[in-house]
Amino acid sequence: MSDILRRGRLELVPDKEIMEYTTSLKADRWIFDADILVDFAHTVMLTEQGIIKRSASESILKGLMQIRDEGIDQLDNSYEDIHIALEARLIELVGEDIGGRMHSGRSRNDEVATCIRLRLREELLGIMEDLLHLRAVLLDIADKNRDTIMPGFTHLQHAQPTTMGHHMMAHQQAFGRDFERVMDCFARVNRSPLGAAAFASTGFAINRERTRELLGFNEIIENSMDAVSSRDFLIETASVIACIMVNLTRIAEELVLWSSKEFSFIELSDQYASTSSIMPQKKNPDTAELLRGKSGVATGNLMALLTICKGLPLSYNRDLQEATPLIWNSIQTCRTSLRITAGMLASMKINENVLAEQSTTGFTTATELADTLVRECDIPFRTAHQIVGQLARMEGVPTFADIERVGKDILGESLIERGLSEQMLKEALDPMLNVKRRNTTGGPNPDEISNSIMRIKKQLSAEEEKVTNIRQSIDRALNNLMQTVDKYTGN
Amino acid sequence: MSDILRRGRLELVPDKEIMEYTTSLKADRWIFDADILVDFAHTVMLTEQGIIKRSASESILKGLMQIRDEGIDQLDNSYEDIHIALEARLIELVGEDIGGRMHSGRSRNDEVATCIRLRLREELLGIMEDLLHLRAVLLDIADKNRDTIMPGFTHLQHAQPTTMGHHMMAHQQAFGRDFERVMDCFARVNRSPLGAAAFASTGFAINRERTRELLGFNEIIENSMDAVSSRDFLIETASVIACIMVNLTRIAEELVLWSSKEFSFIELSDQYASTSSIMPQKKNPDTAELLRGKSGVATGNLMALLTICKGLPLSYNRDLQEATPLIWNSIQTCRTSLRITAGMLASMKINENVLAEQSTTGFTTATELADTLVRECDIPFRTAHQIVGQLARMEGVPTFADIERVGKDILGESLIERGLSEQMLKEALDPMLNVKRRNTTGGPNPDEISNSIMRIKKQLSAEEEKVTNIRQSIDRALNNLMQTVDKYTGN
Amino acid sequence: MSDILRRGRLELVPDKEIMEYTTSLKADRWIFDADILVDFAHTVMLTEQGIIKRSASESILKGLMQIRDEGIDQLDNSYEDIHIALEARLIELVGEDIGGRMHSGRSRNDEVATCIRLRLREELLGIMEDLLHLRAVLLDIADKNRDTIMPGFTHLQHAQPTTMGHHMMAHQQAFGRDFERVMDCFARVNRSPLGAAAFASTGFAINRERTRELLGFNEIIENSMDAVSSRDFLIETASVIACIMVNLTRIAEELVLWSSKEFSFIELSDQYASTSSIMPQKKNPDTAELLRGKSGVATGNLMALLTICKGLPLSYNRDLQEATPLIWNSIQTCRTSLRITAGMLASMKINENVLAEQSTTGFTTATELADTLVRECDIPFRTAHQIVGQLARMEGVPTFADIERVGKDILGESLIERGLSEQMLKEALDPMLNVKRRNTTGGPNPDEISNSIMRIKKQLSAEEEKVTNIRQSIDRALNNLMQTVDKYTGN
Amino acid sequence: MSDILRRGRLELVPDKEIMEYTTSLKADRWIFDADILVDFAHTVMLTEQGIIKRSASESILKGLMQIRDEGIDQLDNSYEDIHIALEARLIELVGEDIGGRMHSGRSRNDEVATCIRLRLREELLGIMEDLLHLRAVLLDIADKNRDTIMPGFTHLQHAQPTTMGHHMMAHQQAFGRDFERVMDCFARVNRSPLGAAAFASTGFAINRERTRELLGFNEIIENSMDAVSSRDFLIETASVIACIMVNLTRIAEELVLWSSKEFSFIELSDQYASTSSIMPQKKNPDTAELLRGKSGVATGNLMALLTICKGLPLSYNRDLQEATPLIWNSIQTCRTSLRITAGMLASMKINENVLAEQSTTGFTTATELADTLVRECDIPFRTAHQIVGQLARMEGVPTFADIERVGKDILGESLIERGLSEQMLKEALDPMLNVKRRNTTGGPNPDEISNSIMRIKKQLSAEEEKVTNIRQSIDRALNNLMQTVDKYTGN
Repeated sequence: MSDILRRGRLELVPDKEIMEYTTSLKADRWIFDADILVDFAHTVMLTEQGIIKRSASESILKGLMQIRDEGIDQLDNSYEDIHIALEARLIELVGEDIGGRMHSGRSRNDEVATCIRLRLREELLGIMEDLLHLRAVLLDIADKNRDTIMPGFTHLQHAQPTTMGHHMMAHQQAFGRDFERVMDCFARVNRSPLGAAAFASTGFAINRERTRELLGFNEIIENSMDAVSSRDFLIETASVIACIMVNLTRIAEELVLWSSKEFSFIELSDQYASTSSIMPQKKNPDTAELLRGKSGVATGNLMALLTICKGLPLSYNRDLQEATPLIWNSIQTCRTSLRITAGMLASMKINENVLAEQSTTGFTTATELADTLVRECDIPFRTAHQIVGQLARMEGVPTFADIERVGKDILGESLIERGLSEQMLKEALDPMLNVKRRNTTGGPNPDEISNSIMRIKKQLSAEEEKVTNIRQSIDRALNNLMQTVDKYTGN
Repeated sequence: MSDILRRGRLELVPDKEIMEYTTSLKADRWIFDADILVDFAHTVMLTEQGIIKRSASESILKGLMQIRDEGIDQLDNSYEDIHIALEARLIELVGEDIGGRMHSGRSRNDEVATCIRLRLREELLGIMEDLLHLRAVLLDIADKNRDTIMPGFTHLQHAQPTTMGHHMMAHQQAFGRDFERVMDCFARVNRSPLGAAAFASTGFAINRERTRELLGFNEIIENSMDAVSSRDFLIETASVIACIMVNLTRIAEELVLWSSKEFSFIELSDQYASTSSIMPQKKNPDTAELLRGKSGVATGNLMALLTICKGLPLSYNRDLQEATPLIWNSIQTCRTSLRITAGMLASMKINENVLAEQSTTGFTTATELADTLVRECDIPFRTAHQIVGQLARMEGVPTFADIERVGKDILGESLIERGLSEQMLKEALDPMLNVKRRNTTGGPNPDEISNSIMRIKKQLSAEEEKVTNIRQSIDRALNNLMQTVDKYTGN
Repeated sequence: MSDILRRGRLELVPDKEIMEYTTSLKADRWIFDADILVDFAHTVMLTEQGIIKRSASESILKGLMQIRDEGIDQLDNSYEDIHIALEARLIELVGEDIGGRMHSGRSRNDEVATCIRLRLREELLGIMEDLLHLRAVLLDIADKNRDTIMPGFTHLQHAQPTTMGHHMMAHQQAFGRDFERVMDCFARVNRSPLGAAAFASTGFAINRERTRELLGFNEIIENSMDAVSSRDFLIETASVIACIMVNLTRIAEELVLWSSKEFSFIELSDQYASTSSIMPQKKNPDTAELLRGKSGVATGNLMALLTICKGLPLSYNRDLQEATPLIWNSIQTCRTSLRITAGMLASMKINENVLAEQSTTGFTTATELADTLVRECDIPFRTAHQIVGQLARMEGVPTFADIERVGKDILGESLIERGLSEQMLKEALDPMLNVKRRNTTGGPNPDEISNSIMRIKKQLSAEEEKVTNIRQSIDRALNNLMQTVDKYTGN
Repeated sequence: MSDILRRGRLELVPDKEIMEYTTSLKADRWIFDADILVDFAHTVMLTEQGIIKRSASESILKGLMQIRDEGIDQLDNSYEDIHIALEARLIELVGEDIGGRMHSGRSRNDEVATCIRLRLREELLGIMEDLLHLRAVLLDIADKNRDTIMPGFTHLQHAQPTTMGHHMMAHQQAFGRDFERVMDCFARVNRSPLGAAAFASTGFAINRERTRELLGFNEIIENSMDAVSSRDFLIETASVIACIMVNLTRIAEELVLWSSKEFSFIELSDQYASTSSIMPQKKNPDTAELLRGKSGVATGNLMALLTICKGLPLSYNRDLQEATPLIWNSIQTCRTSLRITAGMLASMKINENVLAEQSTTGFTTATELADTLVRECDIPFRTAHQIVGQLARMEGVPTFADIERVGKDILGESLIERGLSEQMLKEALDPMLNVKRRNTTGGPNPDEISNSIMRIKKQLSAEEEKVTNIRQSIDRALNNLMQTVDKYTGN
């Protein structure tokens, strides 16, 4: 029996079904590059600390370079995970007397946690960039549609007139919070568990601070038992993604609704539509539906993660192996969904005429009419609400005479005598004037939207810069690591 | 543009990222065989109904045979799903004038629902067989351990003595209910939606009863709109699997606990264990931990399915495409988990000495002692409970004198005078006598366990027969279908 | 310290916060009546078996009667659960020497499981009745709307014409499967765990079959360890309810959509609507939205149950106490939701004119046109699909000349020469003729809908009878129990 | 019909069942105080902006004061929510002509969102304090147990020796991250949606910045549509709580395990234990089990929230009403669980002798032995791992001779000749020396634990100060609001 791990302690070898049940090699594709980096950093540190000799170090690093170049497909896939497959290959290349020293002072427990975090931080930066892109698209549509009047909805009922610009800015703002959450999450992911070994750290005189620096982590996860046992950083990531996906379903739902014959607010690009195998006239918003459906996958992954982590005693338990593939699945779902959504939105055609026409159906100006009665006739809002509510029961838009009559019924007084004029009524019923009057911070008034866009653009720039700075700082660290490796190997 | 579906209605082609986002081809591997069967049955029926000519039918069926032989990997994977990829390949083989007729009177909506049900019913039968096997293993262990005394637990505290046989029978019974649930679920899966077309059935004079018969379904799903829109059969399947997996976690948890140094109740076979990359003495119950963790995957898939189906208006929506891969994942997780569990249990070594020794620590015989006081001294159970509770606060097992003293304190009377003897005490404290006295139906008394095993064995046989009968009935239908195809193609 | 349970073994008393954290008394309101029934049955059986004397039995039963009359609010709420609060009250009434005997041969573990099942089976019968009622309402609407033409949807796009009757029958059919599931679940709930005691059954010569009979259970849950440890019957109940709720969200979503200004398919009764605090014209479909939202509660409860049960070793663990309130919450949510939905549907106004007008917009007759080309001109379906797809790209409904021209372009032949006439086109474009032609089993053809309604009505009657029979059989058992109690107490 | 809301627009009144289905009054108890504060702030701002007159304002504020003093139970509970019940009571007190003006320029949509955030920020501060307290308890136990040797576990197998101090610090660190997450979440909760009105802001010249200041919010949620439609702050809160609860289950699981007869690592205080109704000797860790179970409730609530928010189009939908009670439930569960856990830990008795005895069983020193071979004999780690793995297969702790023999077998060389001495072996097998050698940052070495405790204490102080500063800043704002109210009302 040649398995470099099992040969010592265990006799029987798992059969194929058990092997497939227990291996993590499939999901480990995500961390192949990260694992090599961790091996580089650990080997450099071991050498610097005098735990392995410079000459051994040179061979190990050269071997790792070769393995990296060969790629993951050259590894023996009968091993239970990538770490041991990689070590086995290294020993094959440079001999056990040298290759067998690389794992000094560490364990797969801290190794895998470090690999996951390395790859995950990369993906979180990617999500941040995808979010920034989507928000830029939303801002752009908002900018072009500051004056595109449309009905605003509550309870899917026409409520008050608003603009497509205002509507798009609402989604932008939600994704702004999602960005904040990813950034907060990133801070907790970008920490180094390396050196925690199996859970009790190690008796070798390793230097955790040095591997942290070489891998570009922000800080170390101090307590070694926690460092290998905790997957709350995965739960947090999955939560943040589930939240993003739920926010995306709201857009997806609207795109589906708005593409319907009944709404006809927009037309999606053919790229994002499909037709029917039987109904040749169909143009279906399939991509938006899939987007909506994929939120289920993200929610399911989060629930799976919470279930897996529930009730595990310290420290590392193998259950955690099931956690990692879920996170890669969520990451991939989220990132493609963000990009697809940006594409769908950027390429859709907005039917401005339909929106304008619908903006007043359903007596959407009723609130402004009630407010006008309050402002101009000095009656309480609740009474104005009753008067206009009564008017709303009638067919069509109320006339000046209607208002006066109902006003008298309810108030016992003439609204005209209290100051109401036909001009006031006309203005109250004009959807654009409605929108313009709503110039409070964050309201739909087109100038206010312009202001808001300017503010958000600044915010986006600042956030972009933050992401870039983080990327650069990581790149610097990894470049430094590679230069050190090159120095050792004489490249 | 050559896409046989899109060429009519749509101009722009999705780019690669959109294509990957929207395609179902990866998950469709599960239904390739089923799709061919559905095509066979539909084509035979269309021919019988005179909707397509016998000669066209012959070409189509031959083409399908060839496609089946070529396998799924020969299909053009740029199509959005297997149905259209397969139809495109057919048209390539036999020309559009003939191949273009196969899809008459149906839609991908009823087609895919039929395919999923065909494959799923096969897998449900497989789960039933896996459950029967696991239950047989549990029965076998129970049979061999009718007299293996062990501590029974509540709240993970030693409670009363029981036997390993009694314990294994508890798990068996739970999986018995799981079997019932899979069988109930099967009845709802084994129904034919074929003929529902897009959702409104079809104006072609098709015969739904005939395709039902050819595919071996038990009944048809009558209303055509429901037939294509509903995925509650997937929700039910995922629920049943989640429940099985939760039941498996209870075994997994016990295997992990029992393998610990502190319990040492069992030793798992090396096959199901792994060692550590750093701690060479370790023998870890990894497979049991993974089993426990995989329940999270099943729970997550159920939650994903519920999320996907929530709030979808009738009839078919593309969101449902996301539902299917989840079910295949749950199926695979469940089936391998059942088999792995059976293997782990069958190969584990039970440490009878440890179990026997532990069976009385923690004063597990206290209940029997209290019951003895009730029976022999005619005092109320609640008072006996108080007396023995008081005794339990002391170190070690109470002596006869202890009991008499505490009894007097609480009762104000001599228990000896009320009939208690040292012999009674001795018997009450004997774990095997404890177990033997518990000869109520379903209790741990070894003879009762024997009876129970006999009853369950009969039940297992009956259930095995049911599964076999179902399999045979399906096989008969599909054989008949293939004979008809052979007749048409002159094979 | 007077706590009849703790006084023996434990010294310190929990403080108020711990008490509130651990008590189940709030949720136990659901099982107060059930608990009294279980006490009745257990006491009667103990007496019949000679375990307690007839005279003691008489006092106990009288005491229980008094407690039942006093109601749950009279119990001392400082106890940790209803079982011990009730026993304490009994001892207060009849003295410990008698009242302290009632708990012989059982434990709270089997007691609480029996209570939950007693109440739950009642509620499951209630759900079945609520489902039957909702289905009757759907049938009734379908019956009145067999000829109410409307656009049928896939992907929320107009697809083909159908009828409101066909649409309502789709929902009916889904709830029919839900009914089956509740019935299957009921069979597993209606089993008696009583006599399992703490988990190891008991050394008292109890008669499990007798208490089963007295409480009207269908069978006993044999293995005593499983009987107290398993809550898969709660998981199954919660799953079935989650599925019902998801099916209800589909109706809720449609009611919200259909109430929108854009759809205007229906108007909900004012009873089920609300207005806005600020927008006086609003009539919001709040009840339908709440219905949709409440599905989240049912899904959440299922998730909670799965989490709670995951990884629990045998036998009883206190975690399970958290499971029960979730089920009562799901039950209540489900039952009120079913009744509210029935009320909303029964009272809504269907706007037949709007439906009729919309039934052909979006070229919903395209499929029939393609099918006509297939049938009348003998061209392959896939080619007809392409021709009609091309026509669908144009504005408006295609003319006879359009068809001929596009047909020639694609086919290279004249469709007229292949047999197409203007009359055929006219018929293909008529929505009512479209519907009438779809007379396959389960299709929208009004006569087929009539047939279907007749079939379902028979099915409903049969199912109603089943429920009634179950109710009667339970009532007989409980009446018999009460008569026995009366006999013992001399009432 | 007198309902001040419905009287205008709607005729029919909901019956009792519909009322109960739709009302939020039960959950609104949580926001009664918050609602009064919002009314205060809104009224003050309206007055300052000249929208209502100072005299009206005085009456309104006095009315609100009276309502606050009367308490929520005095409100008419037939209204659909607290906002309208409160406004109705106000109108009752001061007349519609005055009371009817309070709702000018706002809607229940922004009102309820503001109320939820006000109460939630208070509760989040409470959770932070509860977390700080729990962490202080963990630090305290760690401090007292820096030298309490115990076996460290991976896979629930003895792995390497560690200390109880190291173990407790691991949990502390996890809750440290939870604290960070609550703080991050707080920043997103503490934002003001007030002034967004129904979703489109308002035509009244309100001042959103002023109400923000009066209510002590950190910033405003700018876009008015997003402000009323988004509940991602609830999803985030529920996620953070679910994560805390999962971390708590890990402690709960350990407390249950450690209380078992087999482990006997600790004894819980009687306060947190219960006994059995039938087994008088039992002392069950019920509170820990309930803690473990309650995590299910938190997970379920998160799932429910995600389900509710999925697929909702903008802006406000009534589904969101179902979201709020879930958050209060999660909050309550989390806060009591944190306090209960702190109490359980602080009062438990640690069995140091058992821990010490167990610390070397299972050959926990094997890693140190392998490391010793690496360091002293300069052999590769992987080879040392194999040698010690081979030794671990034997019974008992290996002797010096065993090592030499196995070393020779595997290495082909004498370990003694390579430098191994008996003293080295003795040291490698000493658990305390094992622990002391692990003096890497975050390792179990007692001095390193002391350093770590000092670092964390500083961190806790800094975090406590942050929470205090936030509380003070909010208190200042609310005091200022009340002073303004007093000024207006002449108090």
